[in-house]
Amino acid sequence: MQLAMVGLGRMGANMVKRLAKNGHECVVFDRSAATVADLAKENGVTGASSMEDLIGKLAKPRAIWLMIPAGVVEQTVEAIAPHLEPGDILIDGGNSYYIDDIARAKMLAEKGIEYVDVGTSGGVWGLERGYCMMIGGSKAIVEHLDPIFKTIAPGPGSIDRTPGRPTGIGTAEDGYLYCGPNGAGHFTKMVHNGIEYGMMAAYAEGLAVLKAANIGKHVAEIDAETTPLRDPEHYQYEFDLPEITEVWRRGSVIASWLLDLTATALIDDPQMSKFGGRVSDSGEGRWTIKAAIDEGVPTPVLTASLYERFSSRGNSLFADKLLSAMRFQFGGHHEVPEKK
Amino acid sequence: MQLAMVGLGRMGANMVKRLAKNGHECVVFDRSAATVADLAKENGVTGASSMEDLIGKLAKPRAIWLMIPAGVVEQTVEAIAPHLEPGDILIDGGNSYYIDDIARAKMLAEKGIEYVDVGTSGGVWGLERGYCMMIGGSKAIVEHLDPIFKTIAPGPGSIDRTPGRPTGIGTAEDGYLYCGPNGAGHFTKMVHNGIEYGMMAAYAEGLAVLKAANIGKHVAEIDAETTPLRDPEHYQYEFDLPEITEVWRRGSVIASWLLDLTATALIDDPQMSKFGGRVSDSGEGRWTIKAAIDEGVPTPVLTASLYERFSSRGNSLFADKLLSAMRFQFGGHHEVPEKK
Amino acid sequence: MQLAMVGLGRMGANMVKRLAKNGHECVVFDRSAATVADLAKENGVTGASSMEDLIGKLAKPRAIWLMIPAGVVEQTVEAIAPHLEPGDILIDGGNSYYIDDIARAKMLAEKGIEYVDVGTSGGVWGLERGYCMMIGGSKAIVEHLDPIFKTIAPGPGSIDRTPGRPTGIGTAEDGYLYCGPNGAGHFTKMVHNGIEYGMMAAYAEGLAVLKAANIGKHVAEIDAETTPLRDPEHYQYEFDLPEITEVWRRGSVIASWLLDLTATALIDDPQMSKFGGRVSDSGEGRWTIKAAIDEGVPTPVLTASLYERFSSRGNSLFADKLLSAMRFQFGGHHEVPEKK
Amino acid sequence: MQLAMVGLGRMGANMVKRLAKNGHECVVFDRSAATVADLAKENGVTGASSMEDLIGKLAKPRAIWLMIPAGVVEQTVEAIAPHLEPGDILIDGGNSYYIDDIARAKMLAEKGIEYVDVGTSGGVWGLERGYCMMIGGSKAIVEHLDPIFKTIAPGPGSIDRTPGRPTGIGTAEDGYLYCGPNGAGHFTKMVHNGIEYGMMAAYAEGLAVLKAANIGKHVAEIDAETTPLRDPEHYQYEFDLPEITEVWRRGSVIASWLLDLTATALIDDPQMSKFGGRVSDSGEGRWTIKAAIDEGVPTPVLTASLYERFSSRGNSLFADKLLSAMRFQFGGHHEVPEKK
Repeated sequence: MQLAMVGLGRMGANMVKRLAKNGHECVVFDRSAATVADLAKENGVTGASSMEDLIGKLAKPRAIWLMIPAGVVEQTVEAIAPHLEPGDILIDGGNSYYIDDIARAKMLAEKGIEYVDVGTSGGVWGLERGYCMMIGGSKAIVEHLDPIFKTIAPGPGSIDRTPGRPTGIGTAEDGYLYCGPNGAGHFTKMVHNGIEYGMMAAYAEGLAVLKAANIGKHVAEIDAETTPLRDPEHYQYEFDLPEITEVWRRGSVIASWLLDLTATALIDDPQMSKFGGRVSDSGEGRWTIKAAIDEGVPTPVLTASLYERFSSRGNSLFADKLLSAMRFQFGGHHEVPEKK
Repeated sequence: MQLAMVGLGRMGANMVKRLAKNGHECVVFDRSAATVADLAKENGVTGASSMEDLIGKLAKPRAIWLMIPAGVVEQTVEAIAPHLEPGDILIDGGNSYYIDDIARAKMLAEKGIEYVDVGTSGGVWGLERGYCMMIGGSKAIVEHLDPIFKTIAPGPGSIDRTPGRPTGIGTAEDGYLYCGPNGAGHFTKMVHNGIEYGMMAAYAEGLAVLKAANIGKHVAEIDAETTPLRDPEHYQYEFDLPEITEVWRRGSVIASWLLDLTATALIDDPQMSKFGGRVSDSGEGRWTIKAAIDEGVPTPVLTASLYERFSSRGNSLFADKLLSAMRFQFGGHHEVPEKK
Repeated sequence: MQLAMVGLGRMGANMVKRLAKNGHECVVFDRSAATVADLAKENGVTGASSMEDLIGKLAKPRAIWLMIPAGVVEQTVEAIAPHLEPGDILIDGGNSYYIDDIARAKMLAEKGIEYVDVGTSGGVWGLERGYCMMIGGSKAIVEHLDPIFKTIAPGPGSIDRTPGRPTGIGTAEDGYLYCGPNGAGHFTKMVHNGIEYGMMAAYAEGLAVLKAANIGKHVAEIDAETTPLRDPEHYQYEFDLPEITEVWRRGSVIASWLLDLTATALIDDPQMSKFGGRVSDSGEGRWTIKAAIDEGVPTPVLTASLYERFSSRGNSLFADKLLSAMRFQFGGHHEVPEKK
Repeated sequence: MQLAMVGLGRMGANMVKRLAKNGHECVVFDRSAATVADLAKENGVTGASSMEDLIGKLAKPRAIWLMIPAGVVEQTVEAIAPHLEPGDILIDGGNSYYIDDIARAKMLAEKGIEYVDVGTSGGVWGLERGYCMMIGGSKAIVEHLDPIFKTIAPGPGSIDRTPGRPTGIGTAEDGYLYCGPNGAGHFTKMVHNGIEYGMMAAYAEGLAVLKAANIGKHVAEIDAETTPLRDPEHYQYEFDLPEITEVWRRGSVIASWLLDLTATALIDDPQMSKFGGRVSDSGEGRWTIKAAIDEGVPTPVLTASLYERFSSRGNSLFADKLLSAMRFQFGGHHEVPEKK
């Protein structure tokens, strides 16, 4: 079927290629005319020179997929909406906040325009593996778009079926899922990313414990401000992290795709010398915690993983200074400078 | 080669079957004579009626694998050691504390007896998939035992190779790894389990946030002790957790073997009605945190996942009562009883 | 000066008494006519039979203090505002969300009405000790109300001056403070409560560790699901918590008013038998964490204390069941029932 | 009564002065002869030139108080013990690990020597305020030393009595307490410090949230790696932390001695420019968490406060680099460098 794609970054462009290769007709637009021209060379892809041009090239009801940064979705919707007609469909495949979906869908519904929110996971690997999609909106509209989703999704591939799962009960095994009314897609994706933060931190913390298991070889001189290690003989190990992550990929309980990637990263750079340790967070982790707080559901692991990222960027510095100041006040303790 | 197995529980018995099926000669012993008799029916398996009988049936240097609860390893080693001779090998394949390995290896070394600590992961799935093994001890002795480890391990199977990994650099791709001197095997397994706790908690917390996303439909009456939900319209979702865990298995960033198992559990029992929520912890999680503290390495995620288990068993009750008591003291607040 | 008080619960009534006793003229209103009649017996207090009656009894510019639950502030402001005139002053002394203050102040400013947000701390002790107040709004208006704040506040009392603090630099030493534009008062109070949660939890956790220090006397039987205590001889203490909290009040670094209250609670009920351990949270703790997340400031301690409260009310049950379900899936582990 | 003091650092010297001023006879020793000579100028203080000289100057049964770093207690006890006789008393007033107390007391008991462990709190303020003491050992011996403890302790001073507390029930109101058999004193002090860490972190985190409440004035440019702040207008406050901590000292629920010190630190240096933010931890915090883990008691707040200190010293760097590496692997995300 026909689909318009607005935003031809890595993910948008890859989706178009996947769709075109499988016989769908794509009309594409991007701020960069060169990017549009490039992609329009593919079979089944038509370029558009402007948003108006794009809309004019679409059969009704139009289906327009936005694959753009969350920060510009609002203005883009406002620019497109006046040109749309009742029955047309806007799909937000980016990382929007589900609360914005709810407001946006309501506003568009007043004009008869359908809105579908799609959370996609798969990162740079999506072109090859397909994108896992979590979808919110009107059930009928999502079913109308089914050919699109089925093509973008990974399909069952070689992944084992879940034991006990009945056959023929929907699309989850193909890698896409209707999750509920508007916002449900991005809510599910938001929580997905919250879990991702937690898993990543679990690996990172565990590997850091292995890395420091040689600390008994570097016992510090006694100073009044530092606890001496009681049993240096218990911390004499030099663990080989690339090998350990590799062996864990093989039959252990913690095997996962993230572990695969970690093993890849460690084989390439065992000391992590290419990274400074400033870890970004991109919204979903924060929103997950806010939702958990509204619900009154404790999420200590997901929250700790978010805060590790904040701290990694230096955001606990003022609090740390206050702690040193208090220690000085009650105990006369001076800070011990970093060892060079 | 020949191996003695002491302890024929689920894991020990499965290992013997895997070994015997692949041409190794196994001599087996267990507290239960019936269990020994049962397993001795397999080709290549010889039963022993006592520890002395077992030792007498072994060629020198003897290799004896203990697959018994951590709590009885000490006494078993003490019972066997006097019967062993220099060059014999004791292998502890259970969940011992690596600190005990260090002491035990030192004590046995004085008698010329070799000690090897093996952390194994794979749970009830090991017979089918093979066991992932992390091994500590003398390098030469571990190499001597290589035929045993290679057989118990999963082998490379159909798992993709790690991109960029040179070929022929050791055994990790076969699912077993020499990790370092004594204790290194159980240290690595300990951290593995610490990570496991963290990952499990990440999934559990995220799914709990999804589960409670319908809380806006059940807005409580205003009472002075409870915060009213500001935006009930943001929490109107009824998420289908079996379907969501299924779709995440398909191309998402958080795909893992633990997620596969979670999807299996949810398909069978979406409301988790078979469980009361008292979560055990079996040592490695605690030891991981103690090691992290000795090393001065922050592990907030792994620790939070351990504490969730403590709390699940009611261990925060006294602290919680104290909080209510303080609230009563300063604000005259009374506890709000549970809604029935 | 003249002040109207709307809402004569514990705090509102106490404030009126404190004001009237010190020569201010109070006009009071409450949903309960009996409460109004009761308080109107005090010298200097005039009762009002309705909001209209109240407003009619006030000299211009009117000053009306709302001391009502956060959940009904919005509707009360909407009911009063139409009767007010430019220059009149509305004061919200309750526990409103500072974000609501910002919106409310803006709306009232359009009608020329001044809005002041006041966070008050002191609980049931305020009548005797005075209330600590954190104030947001227009600086000129807050100065106009200074006689009211000075009377409600505790004053310097017998509390030592902060060493190094210049004299005569504002009102903080009297126990009230202009914190900034609208919302600043409730923002400061919100964080105050966030800190309160953290401190309460610090005491509760520490005391729980002392309480359980006799666990070595009750060593459980070995079962595969539970880690045996390695060194029971290290946990043979029967600590007397009422005495320990008392001694900490005397010269220790952790002396505080909350500790005073904890000692009071423990002397009365050392086993905390009057409490079930369901700990409420009343908004500010949640809002503090949401602000921290918006700011990107890590607050692991404050967040952990909030989550302890969530868990105390059973809100981690579903997550805990999931953990047990996963353990069953990979290891065949069954839950260990509670000991009776 | 007579007491020997070994170790004349800040705390040891201050205790001697407090004792001598109140009529006790002190014999003192320190590695530094100059320090001994200095203190021996005080009335009632006799200097010793060596450990042997010290022991020779004491009446039997001797009472010797060690006020030395935890790291040298073991060797000091080993040096003194051979010179002592049955009935003599060794008191460890430093920050020893209670587990060492248990072993040490057992060893000394075999020679008939009494051992008393005393946790002291009060820091540099002890000379003026007196030291809060938590005491472990034989009850009879602790009662024998009562005159010493009573003098070093703060006494009831002007602190209000705990409501409901019976009169004449022990020494807690004087600021010292017999807590139980050996180790009980240092166990109680250990938990005291664990709580201290938690309280300090609660203040530090809350003040950091206030400090960053102006973040809406510095809204970053949109980049794909950073979540834009949704509502900058909610974060426009410039809070005056010296004034806010001052007002909280006056009738608020979070008033405490630590808050007094924080207010002092902030008046002197509102930007905390004298501190780099590397926060030491000195043993008790770590041991508290290890005890909690052994007991199975969740202590998320105390643990988070310990980990904040680890992180403040850069100990999460490797884990953070791993997180960035994973993000690069799955999403091609590059680290965003620090803004200059």
